[in-house]
Amino acid sequence: MMLRGLFVGRFQPFHNGHREAIKYVIKNVDELVIVVGSAQVSHEIDNPFTAGERIMMLKMALKDILVDPLKCYLVPIPDASMHSVWVPTVISYTPPFNIVFSNEPLTSRLFKEFGIIVEKIPFFNRDTYSATEVRRRMLVGENWKELLPGSIVKVVEDIDGVARLKELTLPDSFSKR
Amino acid sequence: MMLRGLFVGRFQPFHNGHREAIKYVIKNVDELVIVVGSAQVSHEIDNPFTAGERIMMLKMALKDILVDPLKCYLVPIPDASMHSVWVPTVISYTPPFNIVFSNEPLTSRLFKEFGIIVEKIPFFNRDTYSATEVRRRMLVGENWKELLPGSIVKVVEDIDGVARLKELTLPDSFSKR
Amino acid sequence: MMLRGLFVGRFQPFHNGHREAIKYVIKNVDELVIVVGSAQVSHEIDNPFTAGERIMMLKMALKDILVDPLKCYLVPIPDASMHSVWVPTVISYTPPFNIVFSNEPLTSRLFKEFGIIVEKIPFFNRDTYSATEVRRRMLVGENWKELLPGSIVKVVEDIDGVARLKELTLPDSFSKR
Amino acid sequence: MMLRGLFVGRFQPFHNGHREAIKYVIKNVDELVIVVGSAQVSHEIDNPFTAGERIMMLKMALKDILVDPLKCYLVPIPDASMHSVWVPTVISYTPPFNIVFSNEPLTSRLFKEFGIIVEKIPFFNRDTYSATEVRRRMLVGENWKELLPGSIVKVVEDIDGVARLKELTLPDSFSKR
Amino acid sequence: MMLRGLFVGRFQPFHNGHREAIKYVIKNVDELVIVVGSAQVSHEIDNPFTAGERIMMLKMALKDILVDPLKCYLVPIPDASMHSVWVPTVISYTPPFNIVFSNEPLTSRLFKEFGIIVEKIPFFNRDTYSATEVRRRMLVGENWKELLPGSIVKVVEDIDGVARLKELTLPDSFSKR
Amino acid sequence: MMLRGLFVGRFQPFHNGHREAIKYVIKNVDELVIVVGSAQVSHEIDNPFTAGERIMMLKMALKDILVDPLKCYLVPIPDASMHSVWVPTVISYTPPFNIVFSNEPLTSRLFKEFGIIVEKIPFFNRDTYSATEVRRRMLVGENWKELLPGSIVKVVEDIDGVARLKELTLPDSFSKR
Repeated sequence: MMLRGLFVGRFQPFHNGHREAIKYVIKNVDELVIVVGSAQVSHEIDNPFTAGERIMMLKMALKDILVDPLKCYLVPIPDASMHSVWVPTVISYTPPFNIVFSNEPLTSRLFKEFGIIVEKIPFFNRDTYSATEVRRRMLVGENWKELLPGSIVKVVEDIDGVARLKELTLPDSFSKR
Repeated sequence: MMLRGLFVGRFQPFHNGHREAIKYVIKNVDELVIVVGSAQVSHEIDNPFTAGERIMMLKMALKDILVDPLKCYLVPIPDASMHSVWVPTVISYTPPFNIVFSNEPLTSRLFKEFGIIVEKIPFFNRDTYSATEVRRRMLVGENWKELLPGSIVKVVEDIDGVARLKELTLPDSFSKR
Repeated sequence: MMLRGLFVGRFQPFHNGHREAIKYVIKNVDELVIVVGSAQVSHEIDNPFTAGERIMMLKMALKDILVDPLKCYLVPIPDASMHSVWVPTVISYTPPFNIVFSNEPLTSRLFKEFGIIVEKIPFFNRDTYSATEVRRRMLVGENWKELLPGSIVKVVEDIDGVARLKELTLPDSFSKR
Repeated sequence: MMLRGLFVGRFQPFHNGHREAIKYVIKNVDELVIVVGSAQVSHEIDNPFTAGERIMMLKMALKDILVDPLKCYLVPIPDASMHSVWVPTVISYTPPFNIVFSNEPLTSRLFKEFGIIVEKIPFFNRDTYSATEVRRRMLVGENWKELLPGSIVKVVEDIDGVARLKELTLPDSFSKR
Repeated sequence: MMLRGLFVGRFQPFHNGHREAIKYVIKNVDELVIVVGSAQVSHEIDNPFTAGERIMMLKMALKDILVDPLKCYLVPIPDASMHSVWVPTVISYTPPFNIVFSNEPLTSRLFKEFGIIVEKIPFFNRDTYSATEVRRRMLVGENWKELLPGSIVKVVEDIDGVARLKELTLPDSFSKR
Repeated sequence: MMLRGLFVGRFQPFHNGHREAIKYVIKNVDELVIVVGSAQVSHEIDNPFTAGERIMMLKMALKDILVDPLKCYLVPIPDASMHSVWVPTVISYTPPFNIVFSNEPLTSRLFKEFGIIVEKIPFFNRDTYSATEVRRRMLVGENWKELLPGSIVKVVEDIDGVARLKELTLPDSFSKR
């Protein structure tokens, strides 16, 4: 029987930690479904990039690490209105899968409550390989590029992503008060 | 004319303060509608339990305090998209009622703006008989059981509720970054 | 182990067919969860009554047929935004159940796809004991009362339900054109 | 005390019947709130025009009939998710009003259920002064312009409204099958 | 060609800064569309007033500063579910406009991403002419009236707005725990 | 400059007409974004298949016709709440595209109103290569397999798709009345 795995991320933005995780996971399955979570969200401080931009990043990254594109599905999924229906929403948007790879506690619990197997992923430099750290560095002008694959750095630059993020953190001004 | 009262709570979880309040209210009406508010929410730190679990707690509690079940309605109601339509949403989901029992300022104001009578309830050990305090004790391992009726303690244990709550407070990890 | 069953209806309005079905089902379970479906809908030709009114009808009917109210849950549930999340929405709003009683094909399929047992109910005068037939008779002035338990007839009359239904079918007039 | 009236329409498009009705209503109140209903809908066969376009039509029409613009409010309001909260949604979006002018049965019933006075408006050539008739004539190439004030005809022409309506009725083609 | 401008605010409440901004903007355009943003929100600490109340404030203010009412549109618009569709939602609810006046960074970015010209407005005593400051003064009992036009002060008093705001900040009490 | 095209379909199910259209389109662009529209819908007579099932069909089909998978994006997108924001929703979920291929009038109009180029696709046996015809044949037991690529026939059979579709068309029965 074919083993199809599921990997969930928000990829705001995609970074080296995601890359290492996918390299690890892909070795353990026949096919991999990568869910781009919170797909409807963008232009927020914690979620600056659109689903379309994040899919582009993933496409680049999969090409870089030489994953067979026929083995992978990239699926943007909007948030559910209630936690209790998020897993069936994912099931409805994806091909059938046998196993979920996740270290995130709520994601893991929700899948387990539906009887789905969840496995953890080894962490890779968790302190720096995190999207929160990437966005922090972008905002304060530190070296964020070393945390991302080169091709993703280029995507961020092409869409002028750092400027967008900085604008989102400017103090609210007149018209909104 | 029959007097039908309305009592609103989130019951996350049901505790001794709710029990005392319902015992007080039920003496003053012919029938009582108990609204399980924010029914669509669960698996959140402040809202760990599903509407179904909360209804079970209420059913147990009403049995414990020997309320005639024919006198009570248990009605889960999801949040409205805007405060200004919450009261008519409640009206649509419930049998007609003449009076609301609430100490909560916004609930009281919204009902009053619709011309509905709102009465306060005496507080019962407000500092400890609060769901916030119950959840705090669950998380830090203090004695939460003394704040709940015994039958509700059993419901929480049957659904492994403390473990769920603790998982919801674990730090966000890899897959969500 | 306790056997808890689930019965789903829209009850627009509750009629003798519902009564017979519940009498049949209740004999086969320890507890019964009755879901008032499409709870958010009212004031429509096919859905004239509010969830609150329908819950009142059910309360009356359960009392009439001498069902132990401690064995029954009445749970209004709004429609889900997509069929694929309707079953988990029901699960979230209700105590755990082991079996669903339904003759409706889509309801049956959706529960079965979640691995839940579904059993059919014997029909009772299906041609006349139907809410569609009740509403038709209300509109044309035929004898609709013989299709409902007497206590439900009274609820409909108290809320002037036939007049409401008739108004909903008047031709659209000026302001909406 | 000031008398402020409310008049609800979809104005798809504004026609001579609306004009006569507003002329009638405005004489009976100090101020008038005109609600542009189903504001979120456009590009549908029965709702071709956006709320913005419909507001422009109303502005033109009020100018034509020499209504004091300080006496009028034009308020677009999206549909509510349930009939039972539509009236409070209207109340939330509008200045306080004392009376509603409407011939539409559901609108009238919903306002009356909230204890608000509803008065009927005399009809003006109801058979031809209807938006349904206007759209029908637009589609088949008959004389629709005679049913609209001249200034509104111009708005429709400026936005190429007839072409839009015709496109919306073309048979579904390849990509949607 | 006619120049139609767009000005966006939440007006919670309308204050002297809004007045000065509108006086500045109106001189630079033929017509002005004033969007009442977050129209669906009220009865919140940061958003105490309904859209209807805010529209009344604007109507008063425009009359005070002698703006020709035929030149102005007041359009309440609910929030969009995602930032990326907020601008087209605004476009759908308003007459066509050529230029947006805003100092708010996210508003400006979103309009610019759709190719629409955005101009800044000179600030007028930004520290005190802000709705945040007005609400702060209302809550602590300082002089808020000096920050609002006199006619708006009257609207706030007529609807007992300060009492409402204060109630919204009372500590959550029993029924919500 | 790279030319990236967009092709929109519901694929209920994918059939030979879709295959021919994609073969035609792919020759004219460097990359192709295929949108799986109405992604949230399934288990309906006109929309029996989930987004996940439809993505599987497309993956198979692209493999069959030897399209380079690195050149293609498969993106499920839920319906927008209003037509006027559907195009920006698509833009938000997809990589930037220069051209849309569509024969569907509303799709074409909505993209054109946003200034996006739309080109038509030659039809391929339009009368029989249509999903409506496929579903009709499935229901009445005619030869539907000749209208689908062989690999898609297998997907439909693996998920027992014809049985699901037939169940969805059974007459509504007891529990829903």
